[in-house]
Amino acid sequence: MIPEKHPRRVSLEVRHKLVDGFKKGLVAQAGLIAQGRGEAFDYLVGEKTSVIARKAEEAAVALMLLAENPVISVNGNAAALCPGEIARLASLVKAKVEVNLFYRSVEREKKIANVLKKAGVKKVYGVASKPKKIAGLQSNRRMIDEALWNSDVVLVPLEDGDRTEALVKMGKKVIAIDLNPMSRTSRKATVTIVDNIVRAMPEMVKHAGKLKKADEKKLRVIVNKFNNKKNLKNAEKLIRKSL
Amino acid sequence: MIPEKHPRRVSLEVRHKLVDGFKKGLVAQAGLIAQGRGEAFDYLVGEKTSVIARKAEEAAVALMLLAENPVISVNGNAAALCPGEIARLASLVKAKVEVNLFYRSVEREKKIANVLKKAGVKKVYGVASKPKKIAGLQSNRRMIDEALWNSDVVLVPLEDGDRTEALVKMGKKVIAIDLNPMSRTSRKATVTIVDNIVRAMPEMVKHAGKLKKADEKKLRVIVNKFNNKKNLKNAEKLIRKSL
Repeated sequence: MIPEKHPRRVSLEVRHKLVDGFKKGLVAQAGLIAQGRGEAFDYLVGEKTSVIARKAEEAAVALMLLAENPVISVNGNAAALCPGEIARLASLVKAKVEVNLFYRSVEREKKIANVLKKAGVKKVYGVASKPKKIAGLQSNRRMIDEALWNSDVVLVPLEDGDRTEALVKMGKKVIAIDLNPMSRTSRKATVTIVDNIVRAMPEMVKHAGKLKKADEKKLRVIVNKFNNKKNLKNAEKLIRKSL
Repeated sequence: MIPEKHPRRVSLEVRHKLVDGFKKGLVAQAGLIAQGRGEAFDYLVGEKTSVIARKAEEAAVALMLLAENPVISVNGNAAALCPGEIARLASLVKAKVEVNLFYRSVEREKKIANVLKKAGVKKVYGVASKPKKIAGLQSNRRMIDEALWNSDVVLVPLEDGDRTEALVKMGKKVIAIDLNPMSRTSRKATVTIVDNIVRAMPEMVKHAGKLKKADEKKLRVIVNKFNNKKNLKNAEKLIRKSL
């Protein structure tokens, strides 16, 4: 369908995957708009994983491996775009996987859970659950599953600013994947990966494969060397240079 | 629904308008994604009309007033976001209005035509027509109506790069509204307006009101003074400064 030589073929293929997820009821309308915002920022970072992003991806994996109870919190877009990588990363770093939707419906939760299970996730949390509420948040996303409530490190690909801030206030370490280095999510997260989720997740799986047998000391060195503020500044610079 | 003091209220209201157009069948799925891309770039230009954009808007109107046969080529997003301004501009510069969809369906063409007629467009071209084909274009948008085929100046708000290029190759002067100054559309167009369509169209209506009685000489001076390449460079600089 997309001409082989189209200058932005990969980006269009990703878009088709998302539209397909929309048709299947995984992705919300707002998820399509969010995809477009992501495309624009991806274009500005050159549609490739930068050295800056790679550092954050490594630090994020080290943080997950050091965690007592890491959780990957999945929305419709993440499930539509990279269910296989979510399953592999969860298995490698021993993370729980929970579904967490802004536009919540049990039907959509179940569909997303099915896609994740098919991709290899053994247990999916947050489906038709009686969730706990995060104080001070208005949207549906204040509802979080028992799994997330008890977590110490949370990977939230494609998160909104309010919820990231709330999770950080709860004392959790938050890893965000966000192509806009100036967003509230990016500024509030503990580790911000300024990369497209379709590249970031495979990269994280690779790092997890390499690091899963590393000792605690090595992992701590990686985490301690990483400076999120500095890394975000560098991501901003990268965009400025691309213009 | 959106809190009065929300930092990005206007942007969210526009988004709601578009989602509403989607629910009514005017806007395609890809149109929601395009909206997201626009939001990201609008964020980078500060979500307001710059002096740079204003210059392009004035030049565009002068070009339309000088044209023998100007046409406004409308897609679902444009019809959902500013049907009234399309009608007013068409009337002031005596332009034909045609519907032209990437994801073509007669049903959607008719819905869009109805919205435009309700907003005051007397005749809408390109609905269930037997269109001519632009050579060298793969997508549905190669199909163009008789009205556009015979035009000399075309306003294409929210256009893709392939079609802009093809129209220019056909010898037409193309006016594009595109928030990304680096896009192929922006680089290929004769006059590129780097502004949000919801601000650009009312601005153009204002210019048209002022210029419609201007003599040819005055209009030519405006057009000749305008340098699209330089204007695009300035728009890029504006974004760079905002980072």
